[in-house]
Amino acid sequence: MQINIFADILKANTESARENRRLLAGKGLTALNLISSPGAGKTTLLEETIKRAGADISIGVIEGDVQTARDAERIGKLGVPVIQLNTQGACHLDAAMVAEALKELPLEKIQLLFIENVGNLICPAAFELGEDGKIVILSVPEGSDKVAKYPAIFEKAEVCILNKIDLLEYTDFNREKFYQDMNKINPEITVFEMSASTGEGMESWICWLKRKTQDSPKA
Amino acid sequence: MQINIFADILKANTESARENRRLLAGKGLTALNLISSPGAGKTTLLEETIKRAGADISIGVIEGDVQTARDAERIGKLGVPVIQLNTQGACHLDAAMVAEALKELPLEKIQLLFIENVGNLICPAAFELGEDGKIVILSVPEGSDKVAKYPAIFEKAEVCILNKIDLLEYTDFNREKFYQDMNKINPEITVFEMSASTGEGMESWICWLKRKTQDSPKA
Repeated sequence: MQINIFADILKANTESARENRRLLAGKGLTALNLISSPGAGKTTLLEETIKRAGADISIGVIEGDVQTARDAERIGKLGVPVIQLNTQGACHLDAAMVAEALKELPLEKIQLLFIENVGNLICPAAFELGEDGKIVILSVPEGSDKVAKYPAIFEKAEVCILNKIDLLEYTDFNREKFYQDMNKINPEITVFEMSASTGEGMESWICWLKRKTQDSPKA
Repeated sequence: MQINIFADILKANTESARENRRLLAGKGLTALNLISSPGAGKTTLLEETIKRAGADISIGVIEGDVQTARDAERIGKLGVPVIQLNTQGACHLDAAMVAEALKELPLEKIQLLFIENVGNLICPAAFELGEDGKIVILSVPEGSDKVAKYPAIFEKAEVCILNKIDLLEYTDFNREKFYQDMNKINPEITVFEMSASTGEGMESWICWLKRKTQDSPKA
C-alpha cells in the first residue's frame, strides 16, 4: 500500500521533471543536482566553484533546505542569481518545487544551474528534478562504508566528490575500500578528491564543469 | 494531498509506536532512539558504550540501515543481542518495523534497548518508535549550523551528543553558535561533548545512561 502511494508520487514527479528538463534544454542550460548528507560541504563547494569558474561560466543556483535562508544568503554574496526553496519538513526537493524556482530565475542569462538538494543521502536519489546529472558529495569524516550503505545515490551519480580530504589523516577513512565499493556499484562514475575549504584538488572539477557546459549554445 | 497521505501514515505509525511502548514498559525496558546524519558516529558510539556500560547494564540493539548488515555484525562481535532491520530504500525506521524486531529479541534479559535509526537527520524525527527518548548525534565536521537547519530533531531530542570533538581544531565548527542555536530551539536538552573513537568525554554519557535505566524494575 505504502509502496503504491510512493509509486504514484514518483510518477507525478517524473512528469514534472520532464517539463523542467524540456524548459532547461530549450534555454541551453546545464543543470546539476548536488546531493549529500548534511554537512558534507555542498554550500562551501558551491561558493568555491563560483569563485573559480564564475568568470568563465554564468552560474545560477537553487538552494534547497528544510528551513532557513542561510545558504542562499551565502551564495547571494557572490553576486550570482539564487533562489531559496524551503521544504518545511520534507526531506528532499521535488520537480514541482524546482519548477517554481525556475520561474523566478533569469534563465536567459544562466549557462550552468546548480540545484543544491536538502541534506540527505537517501530520498533525493529517488526524485528526478529535470537535471542533466547528479553530483554526490561524500566527506571523509562520514566514513568509507557509506557507498555500500547508501548505494542508490552512488549508483545514479555521474560524479562523486570526495570532500574534506584534508581530514584524511585524522579519521579512519579507508580510501581503498571506498574505491572498491564504488567500483562494484558504479564503475562509470568520475571521482574528484578535494577539500573545498582549503581549495586542494579543485582544478579538475572546474575543468570538468567547463567541458560539461561547453556544449551549451550559450557557451 | 501529499500532506494528508503523510498524516495518515504518521497516525498509523503512532498507533504501532504506542503498542511497542506498552510492550517495552511491561518488560521494564528503557528504549533509546539514536538519530543522526550518515557517518556522525552512531555505531562507534554504540560499540564504545557497550564496552563501558555492558558489565553493569544488560544491553540489546536494533540496527536500522537502508542496506547491508555491517552495523549488526560490528555490534554482534561484542556479544550483545542485536537485530538488523533493512529498510530497502526507506529513509527512516517506523514502529511496525521495530515491532518485528522486538519479536526476535530476548526482551526478558534486556534492560536498555538502543534503536539505531537510518542515517538521516530529517524523517526519523517524525516517526515515533515507542522509545523512551531520542538521542541526536551531531558530529563536529558537519558544522555548527545544522541545529538551525534541521531543527525538528534537535527540538524533540532529550540528549544531543556532540561527537568527534577531537576534530574541533581542524574544522570551522563554532561551538558558541552551536549552543546559542540549541538554547533557542531546545533549552532543556542535555549535551554531551565527546569523541567516541578516542573515548574522550564518554564518562558523563555512561553515567546518564545508568541513571536513566536505574528506574527499570530489572535494574
